[in-house]
Amino acid sequence: MKYRIAMDAMGGDHAPQEIIKGVVTAMREDDELDIILIGDEEAIKKELQSLNCKKEPHIVHTDQWITMDASPKKALQGNPRASVILAAKLVHEGQADALVSAGNTGATVLAAAQNLQIIPGIERSGLAAIYPTAKFEHGGHGFALILDVGATLHCTPKQLVHFAYMGSYYVSHVLGIENPRVALLNIGEEETKGGEVLTKTHRYLQDAEGLNFVGNVEGKDIPKGAADVIVTEGFVGNVVLKMMEGVSDVLRQTGKYALKKKLQWKLGLALLSSGVKRLKKKTDYSEYGGAPILGFEKLVIKAHGRSNAKAIGNAIRVAKKAVAQNVSGHIADSIVKFNEKHSLDFIDI
Amino acid sequence: MKYRIAMDAMGGDHAPQEIIKGVVTAMREDDELDIILIGDEEAIKKELQSLNCKKEPHIVHTDQWITMDASPKKALQGNPRASVILAAKLVHEGQADALVSAGNTGATVLAAAQNLQIIPGIERSGLAAIYPTAKFEHGGHGFALILDVGATLHCTPKQLVHFAYMGSYYVSHVLGIENPRVALLNIGEEETKGGEVLTKTHRYLQDAEGLNFVGNVEGKDIPKGAADVIVTEGFVGNVVLKMMEGVSDVLRQTGKYALKKKLQWKLGLALLSSGVKRLKKKTDYSEYGGAPILGFEKLVIKAHGRSNAKAIGNAIRVAKKAVAQNVSGHIADSIVKFNEKHSLDFIDI
Repeated sequence: MKYRIAMDAMGGDHAPQEIIKGVVTAMREDDELDIILIGDEEAIKKELQSLNCKKEPHIVHTDQWITMDASPKKALQGNPRASVILAAKLVHEGQADALVSAGNTGATVLAAAQNLQIIPGIERSGLAAIYPTAKFEHGGHGFALILDVGATLHCTPKQLVHFAYMGSYYVSHVLGIENPRVALLNIGEEETKGGEVLTKTHRYLQDAEGLNFVGNVEGKDIPKGAADVIVTEGFVGNVVLKMMEGVSDVLRQTGKYALKKKLQWKLGLALLSSGVKRLKKKTDYSEYGGAPILGFEKLVIKAHGRSNAKAIGNAIRVAKKAVAQNVSGHIADSIVKFNEKHSLDFIDI
Repeated sequence: MKYRIAMDAMGGDHAPQEIIKGVVTAMREDDELDIILIGDEEAIKKELQSLNCKKEPHIVHTDQWITMDASPKKALQGNPRASVILAAKLVHEGQADALVSAGNTGATVLAAAQNLQIIPGIERSGLAAIYPTAKFEHGGHGFALILDVGATLHCTPKQLVHFAYMGSYYVSHVLGIENPRVALLNIGEEETKGGEVLTKTHRYLQDAEGLNFVGNVEGKDIPKGAADVIVTEGFVGNVVLKMMEGVSDVLRQTGKYALKKKLQWKLGLALLSSGVKRLKKKTDYSEYGGAPILGFEKLVIKAHGRSNAKAIGNAIRVAKKAVAQNVSGHIADSIVKFNEKHSLDFIDI
């Protein structure tokens, strides 16, 4: 069995070097991988030569790609042969089973939406993010998934339930968390909290087959790891995700400040450094292989913009696993069942 | 000049002891304060005797109050003479200039909404929270205000602009931050981000007289202190605020874990303790006197549920300052002007 991954060679802060390093290493370690690199052929070949690799990945040449800070919509319109678009087209045409990109997030989501087939019955795709939680202390896995984080700003109850299924299947089949706890982000635990959309969503989730719905969680539960999958609309998920980044930046700055300010603090931090390292390793984004964009018939993995070769390798590994486990197929089956069961309810919402 | 504060003696984790201690100290230090304690007369008198105070506050007796974990709506309905309701009524009747409570937040907001007069032209009150930011490092004030954090889950552009005025006047007149930077919480800096409500709000804010609008901020900017007043709808603000609590809990737990786990880490933390103490002092909730509930003709201050005597004293001091500075009057004036200027726009929103 071969797993064919379309890899955007030009996306990411360290593209194409780290992308190609990651691809070559992944192919060396796994015979079942067949990778198509989409990007500047000359640059790719130069990199491949320097890595001295025997089995070469396929290359699809293009001289267009999307920069990290480009405005997604405009950039895609202006670059119809952008590497991420061609990669999505290859997947759509059946020449690849999954798409991986470390490039511009908005452009990746949009390229997928414009070129891939959405799962029948699903209205909107969901961008998921995997983030570290405090659970590692107790020997737990220490990660949770939150979706949507920006693909769909405001959602209907139906769309939120679909996100719950997407997240649950991904977490169980790809991250290996059995019977994952799915929760709805809200402003209180009571099921009547949060307004009409969330109250309805809560009711559907309670009743949803194949989901381990544990109820509402609040903002304070996000970093604590009270659930494995947290469902929310894209606006809120985006604010939450970026706030985690902001907190992490502030902590790093505070550490740097303390380091400079006083010898005693410098010494204290030095003594703690093994702990900080351990924490860093447990919360290393490169370990879990990037954020899935869910809801399409084929899987899309958005690796972190800062991805190094190791992170790219993990993203490819994760993409293969999702294909092997038929995550999209499982999601599609549940959605059909859920939609049929509630076909009358959804007329008005 | 006398400043008359209605104080809910029964609200808060340490009520009535710490409430009354805080009140007595505040009155000792400030002759202009006239405080009415609303609660169980016997318990209040017992506490006052033990404190040996000369000038006694007024007491309004009641045998009903709302517990911290009660469901606000039901609890208020079942306790029509609850201390927080009587306190709000005293303010409404003109027997007091401001209301302070450290009790159940939802019940305080609801008691205010049911008993106080909203400022003409304002549709919804806003619950604001003051939180520590990373700015203290640079000698800044180190606090910012975010609103709404739960009083109004979803907002119109008009309501969000009103929140901006409320927050801006409070921060400048009570916290003493000159020309405070007001920002709109969004998922990107561009003014077209975030959907119709936020795009419209952005346009109004750019054009709003007397506001120092600095544009959109994202989740990552919240802990960094990129703005002094952050405006958002209540659902998002609530999630953000509780997430900050959650992160702070997780950091404390991680510290405790490190303390127990390894002697080297224990030593490291000991060397850092003066820094942690300094950080704690700079981010001490008891310093800034609680969260204002804005939009009523009289000011309501919701002190933290865990308030000790010092926090209560600061809440009273802040309430007095808001009355002395006529914060509600300033807000009312701006709202009238803003609404008049946009009277035609608001027909459809």
